[in-house]
Amino acid sequence: MNAQPKIAAKAAIDPENFALANCLRALAIDAVNTANSGHPGAPMGMADAATVLFRKHLKFDASAPDWPDRDRFVLSNGHASMLLYGLLHLTGYEDMTIDQIRNFRQWGAITAGHPEWGHAKGVETTTGPLGQGLATAVGMALAERALAAEFPGLVDHRTWVMLGDVCLQEGIGQEAISLAGHLKLGKLNLLYDDNDITIDGPKSVSFSEDVPARFRACGWHVISCDGHDATALDAAMTAARAETSRPTLIAMKTTIGFGAPNRAGTAKAHGSPLGDEEGALAKAALGWDAAPFDIPADLAKSWQEIGARGAKERKAWEAALAASPDAKAFNDRVSGKLPENYAADVQKARSDLFAKPQNVATRKASQIALESLAAAVPAMIGGSADLTGSNLTRVAAVDRQYTAEMPGRYIGYGVREFGMAAAMNGLALHGGFKPYGGTFLVFFDYARNAIRLSALMGLGVTYVMTHDSIGLGEDGPTHQPIEHLASLRAIPNLNVFRPADAVETLEAWDIALRSPATPSLMALSRQNVPQLREAGPENLSEKGAYILRQYGEGRDVTLLATGTEVALAIEAAEKLHDEGYAVTVVSMPCWELFDAQPEEYCESVLGSAPRIAIEAASAFGWTRYVDREADVIGMPGFGASAPAERLYEEFGITTDAIITLAKARIGK
Amino acid sequence: MNAQPKIAAKAAIDPENFALANCLRALAIDAVNTANSGHPGAPMGMADAATVLFRKHLKFDASAPDWPDRDRFVLSNGHASMLLYGLLHLTGYEDMTIDQIRNFRQWGAITAGHPEWGHAKGVETTTGPLGQGLATAVGMALAERALAAEFPGLVDHRTWVMLGDVCLQEGIGQEAISLAGHLKLGKLNLLYDDNDITIDGPKSVSFSEDVPARFRACGWHVISCDGHDATALDAAMTAARAETSRPTLIAMKTTIGFGAPNRAGTAKAHGSPLGDEEGALAKAALGWDAAPFDIPADLAKSWQEIGARGAKERKAWEAALAASPDAKAFNDRVSGKLPENYAADVQKARSDLFAKPQNVATRKASQIALESLAAAVPAMIGGSADLTGSNLTRVAAVDRQYTAEMPGRYIGYGVREFGMAAAMNGLALHGGFKPYGGTFLVFFDYARNAIRLSALMGLGVTYVMTHDSIGLGEDGPTHQPIEHLASLRAIPNLNVFRPADAVETLEAWDIALRSPATPSLMALSRQNVPQLREAGPENLSEKGAYILRQYGEGRDVTLLATGTEVALAIEAAEKLHDEGYAVTVVSMPCWELFDAQPEEYCESVLGSAPRIAIEAASAFGWTRYVDREADVIGMPGFGASAPAERLYEEFGITTDAIITLAKARIGK
Repeated sequence: MNAQPKIAAKAAIDPENFALANCLRALAIDAVNTANSGHPGAPMGMADAATVLFRKHLKFDASAPDWPDRDRFVLSNGHASMLLYGLLHLTGYEDMTIDQIRNFRQWGAITAGHPEWGHAKGVETTTGPLGQGLATAVGMALAERALAAEFPGLVDHRTWVMLGDVCLQEGIGQEAISLAGHLKLGKLNLLYDDNDITIDGPKSVSFSEDVPARFRACGWHVISCDGHDATALDAAMTAARAETSRPTLIAMKTTIGFGAPNRAGTAKAHGSPLGDEEGALAKAALGWDAAPFDIPADLAKSWQEIGARGAKERKAWEAALAASPDAKAFNDRVSGKLPENYAADVQKARSDLFAKPQNVATRKASQIALESLAAAVPAMIGGSADLTGSNLTRVAAVDRQYTAEMPGRYIGYGVREFGMAAAMNGLALHGGFKPYGGTFLVFFDYARNAIRLSALMGLGVTYVMTHDSIGLGEDGPTHQPIEHLASLRAIPNLNVFRPADAVETLEAWDIALRSPATPSLMALSRQNVPQLREAGPENLSEKGAYILRQYGEGRDVTLLATGTEVALAIEAAEKLHDEGYAVTVVSMPCWELFDAQPEEYCESVLGSAPRIAIEAASAFGWTRYVDREADVIGMPGFGASAPAERLYEEFGITTDAIITLAKARIGK
Repeated sequence: MNAQPKIAAKAAIDPENFALANCLRALAIDAVNTANSGHPGAPMGMADAATVLFRKHLKFDASAPDWPDRDRFVLSNGHASMLLYGLLHLTGYEDMTIDQIRNFRQWGAITAGHPEWGHAKGVETTTGPLGQGLATAVGMALAERALAAEFPGLVDHRTWVMLGDVCLQEGIGQEAISLAGHLKLGKLNLLYDDNDITIDGPKSVSFSEDVPARFRACGWHVISCDGHDATALDAAMTAARAETSRPTLIAMKTTIGFGAPNRAGTAKAHGSPLGDEEGALAKAALGWDAAPFDIPADLAKSWQEIGARGAKERKAWEAALAASPDAKAFNDRVSGKLPENYAADVQKARSDLFAKPQNVATRKASQIALESLAAAVPAMIGGSADLTGSNLTRVAAVDRQYTAEMPGRYIGYGVREFGMAAAMNGLALHGGFKPYGGTFLVFFDYARNAIRLSALMGLGVTYVMTHDSIGLGEDGPTHQPIEHLASLRAIPNLNVFRPADAVETLEAWDIALRSPATPSLMALSRQNVPQLREAGPENLSEKGAYILRQYGEGRDVTLLATGTEVALAIEAAEKLHDEGYAVTVVSMPCWELFDAQPEEYCESVLGSAPRIAIEAASAFGWTRYVDREADVIGMPGFGASAPAERLYEEFGITTDAIITLAKARIGK
């Protein structure tokens, strides 16, 4: 392609915007070249649009990155991270120094290869896993509307998302688009970098949709424009802000690697450094003659002014907050603080269980817990991926459905598990909410990478996963989790709870709500279990595992179990005790919390007698606590379709099997 | 709603079709009521359309369920399983007896809650996990077109899919729709059960798209019709068959639970038995007075005739095959037989590696293996989710891109990992193909439930997962797999390979191609490794783990390692040996194969000396082979963004760390 004349033409449209955008391009070229790793093409292609957005539309103040009423800016195509880092540096975010830019992608720098939430201020969410930035932004927009309804006058901001084709090819992209259109999230605006290029070459290799038509089919407002024409971009963003009844897509035709004479418009601009030669040629084409990492003073000053553009509005907002009768309530909400009466409410719910034991499925126990907790904690916002009646996630306090017309505390996510999980991340990231959402445990497979991001970012979200074993019965092996507990326990920084009864279920919820930096996952049963715990004030689940029953003195054998199999272990232990054996039954609702206990505690619980584990799932991972997988009464493979009792019998998860194995191990 | 008059009107349109459809409705009512479990609403709503399809359009012969050129019928909304079982029973599939229908959802019956491939003949794929039936059908349609090009005159059939809203809400649905539209799969036809109902209530709770417009935006041919009007349905299916340049959506307006006077058109018809009373009322409304599970003789006869409708065409096809010079080649292909020279070709590739060792990344080693194997095995069909240059999945033999104009052996799936994996299942299920497809290991999270279905069905597909550890470096924690190996090893019937060098990589591919009933997954490195194996004819990877190096006599310590960490273990072993220790290095490319070996072999490999494991991943699960997770040199949590060498150093996966830990364990 002949880049030069085009560049001249673009530059003439708005020379100031062009010059400011070139700062972003130059930093991207230099940082990626220095790291010898990264993606220069997207930052160079989107620099003009990003400049218009930050110059004229984004509500932000670089000196106050945590201003609750700032617009949220999400770079969904996270590989374009240097665009974001450049923007943060130029507008004056304190921590984003030029040294951080120089150390792009190096150990210890806050300029990770993809934007990582918690590293640099101004990074609103971790992106890189494609499509999730968009879906997370939907959660942010949901949060904004709900919080605005609760705190009128204090909340009124937009969510801006930049993304490329890949976010739209990923299925989660469609889930997000469909949900946002359905709920008419009018303050959600997408800037679509339509550059016709994918890694494997021209987009036409794999993608030939009419993207605007797809958005329109989903109820979106669509604007198309030239992504390098600052005037057109400004008009498009103005129109997007004027449209409040529908989310807006701004489809921007762009050139990837804009300015690089030999690589612009090709896949080669995407994921490799331009190198010294092409980098120099690009700078020449852009009319850029500053030294590497150097920004000419006049441009630096203009960018600093952009960074301070929102200071006045921010201060006015702070004054309004200070004057508001809701100030304390608002600050408590956005800081994630639990209400003052929280502990008392939990104790009350606990006492109720001991006063009137609940022999119910743990999914039902979860609903009972939620009745109290959701009433006690206004930040809780629930939902389900179209399985409300099965997940039992809906209770009185959150009964009001979130609709296009009015926000509510219960979100019908539709059959969109991945989109739901990512939106939950967005609700938590926005601040003000403790989201939870439900589906069947087996179908959280669909949402797995969003759960991973919850854990990586350390967000206080709670996944409610019901139908947690073959105990679901007739729906058969496609619906029966086998490997899921193991596969979730393998994720770092995720508390996987499988409570044994109504008390442990309440305890798990209590822990989840008090864990702002660790996501929680509840594996809950379809089938009933007896309430096993005796009255007492202590949250024993907090230790992850504990001795629930002791039969006889000393120990001949220890039975470790979780969830619905704890009752089975107790039955077996009683029979073994009748035969003269001393048996300890350990309930292990949360491995992660148990492993964090002091070694002496762990040893006292596990004991030195032979151990047997009982869990209606894959034995994989249990060798952390037992000698070999043969010591686990579990599932040898996939399940089958039949009534639950029959399945337990056929797969040998029975008291008889426990007793036989226990005797064999004691005999050694 | 007032069901009666509507039913009368529908019945009048084509009384015969209505009566035949009522057989399906009655069986669904009876089977679900008897099981006291299941989904009557969808079968009752789709019965008219299914009847038209089987009566007039589907190419099949119930007496020859494996006829390779039959149309494929996929029930993507698998909860409607009784519709399929009813069709198979009525049309005379031998194994689908009335006793099987009576035993719907019971232990040992072939009538599982959701259709399970391999249970009943005529079930073309396992469905239930939503959206996947559709995406798998895309793979079947891809297979048909490719095989037709290879065997002109022998292959010409369509793929029909029934689905509901849920398959369209799931993101994977969009991935499938987009890919099918892009590749212009003109023989793919969808029958969309547009009944306005989801589990949580009316569809309007969560779904308000213009579905036909979305399909049109993706290049589909769209027809709308009344889903109970047999004449309109017949016309729509005729039009679908006439359209060969685009896939067709037939959007059928239907009433869920059609005929049930109190539940039709409501969510209550979806997932609960109608019960005796409503069942009886429904039958009365439909004019059905036969006893439960009884089909009036005239209708039974008509259905049997429908089942035999394709016999003549099937016999003509068989005669054509017998007369074709391609008969043997075709039969070998669809039976999955490897070519006669296969073993020799593998040996040749193996000898080449020993003659000229390859110190390359295992992803590159995989490409080297593929160069030989894809040339040797015409059934192999490759692809990537837009990471061809990173996965190195493209080689000369499969270089021809599969396009809308012409099938090829390389499929650009786009950034649609889940859709890719499900399509691979479809390619394998169709017969004639051994599909493989690539992306980054971390992003197979997106495809996880399709991998699970590969394993559950037992399909010979191969997942090529590159960038398998922190060794990928700068892209950072979102791109670095940590828990993935553990989470995949936890899936039953899946061979997870992490080869150490070029020889093991070739061996893994060889095993994968010889495993028609077990999917394989290759975890491959970005970074280079030395070729470690000494020349020899035996595929040692087939045993899953083996002694790769022995230093000194006896054993002071055993080092277990996989993939890129095997070379690290060898370095450490050499240094330990220099210090006088006897060290055994075990390479463990595939745990699943190792665990299937005789106990004596396993003991001889693992030995009784202290064991240390080295794998740049979560230690979760390694206690199968080592005493405790502290004996694993691995990753304690998520990774970070930095060059790979730095990450190995910072996370302590080094020879020094191995040596220190080894000495500590030997010292005990």
